[in-house]
Amino acid sequence: MEKLIKEQQKRIIDELSKIDGNAFTIDEWDRPNGGGGISCVLQDGNVFEKAGVNVSVVYGKLPRPAIEKMRADHKSFVSADVDSLDFFAAGLSLVLHPKNPMAPTVHLNYRFFETSDPKDALNGKTNWWFGGGTDLTPSYLFPEDCEHFHKTIKDVCDTHDPSYYPKFKAWCDKYFYLTHRNEARGIGGIFFDDLDTEFIRQSSPASASISDKEAQERLFSFVTDGLCSFLPAYVPIVKKRKDMPFTEQEKDWQQLRRGRYVEFNLVHDRGTSFGLRTPGSRIESILMSLPRTAKWVYMDPVSGTRTDGVESEDVEGMEREKELMEVLKHPKEWV
Amino acid sequence: MEKLIKEQQKRIIDELSKIDGNAFTIDEWDRPNGGGGISCVLQDGNVFEKAGVNVSVVYGKLPRPAIEKMRADHKSFVSADVDSLDFFAAGLSLVLHPKNPMAPTVHLNYRFFETSDPKDALNGKTNWWFGGGTDLTPSYLFPEDCEHFHKTIKDVCDTHDPSYYPKFKAWCDKYFYLTHRNEARGIGGIFFDDLDTEFIRQSSPASASISDKEAQERLFSFVTDGLCSFLPAYVPIVKKRKDMPFTEQEKDWQQLRRGRYVEFNLVHDRGTSFGLRTPGSRIESILMSLPRTAKWVYMDPVSGTRTDGVESEDVEGMEREKELMEVLKHPKEWV
Repeated sequence: MEKLIKEQQKRIIDELSKIDGNAFTIDEWDRPNGGGGISCVLQDGNVFEKAGVNVSVVYGKLPRPAIEKMRADHKSFVSADVDSLDFFAAGLSLVLHPKNPMAPTVHLNYRFFETSDPKDALNGKTNWWFGGGTDLTPSYLFPEDCEHFHKTIKDVCDTHDPSYYPKFKAWCDKYFYLTHRNEARGIGGIFFDDLDTEFIRQSSPASASISDKEAQERLFSFVTDGLCSFLPAYVPIVKKRKDMPFTEQEKDWQQLRRGRYVEFNLVHDRGTSFGLRTPGSRIESILMSLPRTAKWVYMDPVSGTRTDGVESEDVEGMEREKELMEVLKHPKEWV
Repeated sequence: MEKLIKEQQKRIIDELSKIDGNAFTIDEWDRPNGGGGISCVLQDGNVFEKAGVNVSVVYGKLPRPAIEKMRADHKSFVSADVDSLDFFAAGLSLVLHPKNPMAPTVHLNYRFFETSDPKDALNGKTNWWFGGGTDLTPSYLFPEDCEHFHKTIKDVCDTHDPSYYPKFKAWCDKYFYLTHRNEARGIGGIFFDDLDTEFIRQSSPASASISDKEAQERLFSFVTDGLCSFLPAYVPIVKKRKDMPFTEQEKDWQQLRRGRYVEFNLVHDRGTSFGLRTPGSRIESILMSLPRTAKWVYMDPVSGTRTDGVESEDVEGMEREKELMEVLKHPKEWV
């Protein structure tokens, strides 16, 4: 996993630098309690207002409250009567906020976790799982972009298991949702967590007796393909949109949507919340997901969170903004 | 309390409108489950980028998870074996974000809560308490402004009890603190919660046998004076700073500080977090505390959250920004 994410990080920043014309700042850092990472950030570029592509490989001992937050379903941990666990985590995380309001923000994360047997750290069975996904957050809707993004991901999922895409697409729509606004963050993609042997066994009758090792290999291969599909899923979109003309009003709308991105990441995102509350974490790398700039407006006529049941006011000439809101209020099947 | 906060809301928006030259938008709203409020907001004014002065008077039944979050110390609730409680809450909340980076952001909130006896809603003893405070968040430090703000508040506190100011000033420094950044949100002020008969009895030996009614009157009088001291505490400062010349770089620094304000409100603020998670709350009124605009920078040389122990880099010509950071890292006694 460590090799995969470092290779992909390099490949991704090389490609994004070419598109932007600017190099990434590369910061290598050590974690005081074990491990470290490489944070690559490009700020105030030609194409990207802020682009962060981070790799981290960390290990050590996790205190109990952190253990419980580490896994979405907690199934194997909550009952374990232990105060701390040895753990290993490796992941690649990226968020790109382009300048042009016609070019969408994109997020991707793929991660692998491993924890020791709470009863027998040395010889016991390890507990491991994969998590991740990718999702697109446009300010203006181009249906062909949404279709391309979803189709690229679906194709990768389908080569592994036809049940993956519908399952992970629904999980994504549910996860990247601002409950306090009753709207989705963007047009989705895929999201998954806790993928382990049990998951593979339950996915298909043919895999009911798969070994732990085979399950791990199969999921690693899926995660590898998912990660490798990022550039073909996103690059054609950003290339098509990065030089489109736009008005000041359109830039302003993008800034309001960025405000929602901030709300999601600081209020709802499990990873950010976990990171901000974990002493010793590298705050600057966690918060690289925040946009370079964002705005808030009280009771914006199109996107304001109304309490009277009306979805958006009848504002003249804001058709494209209302079109986006419609999709965020009612997530669509894109492929 | 309802009368007090509505009168003060009117007085405050009248005075702020005069300073800005623009009127507030006044939205009256009803809460589906009981009560309502008046939200007064001034956006994109001459002096204020965003100013919100909200009153809410709400009542009804609170589910158990909300009960536990409603009170900082939970003392009387956690043991109570009930699923819901009748409650009444009235408060005034204001946040002003001026345009000029030399003029500080200010926040104030005064609130009163009452809940029924969990065992006997009709005839049982009610449980009530006051909470509130005010704090100042400058982007650039003017020691005389900080002293004036703190002195005005201290004078009010001292007329009620000389122990209030030191106690509530320390509580404020502790509460308005970004743990993930290891810095204060601003230069503080006062903050308190759970002020009830027990609090008054413990404050001074002379009040050891004060009645519930007298304690409530005494605290209401303190809260009234606190609320009335807002205009004299803040208005002279904003008048002095609102027309000062500033550079684009100074405006930019203000925007970074606004980013921290967003981080505090969305990640740490108990009231915001409670509101965003309570179904049926008026999101636009809760989030009026967010600034009109904010920025984030990866590893800003002056305010970036370093992991190497160095507090800020030796950046030429950023003396005033470093001066602010110094005070945020090491809160001061201003009077």
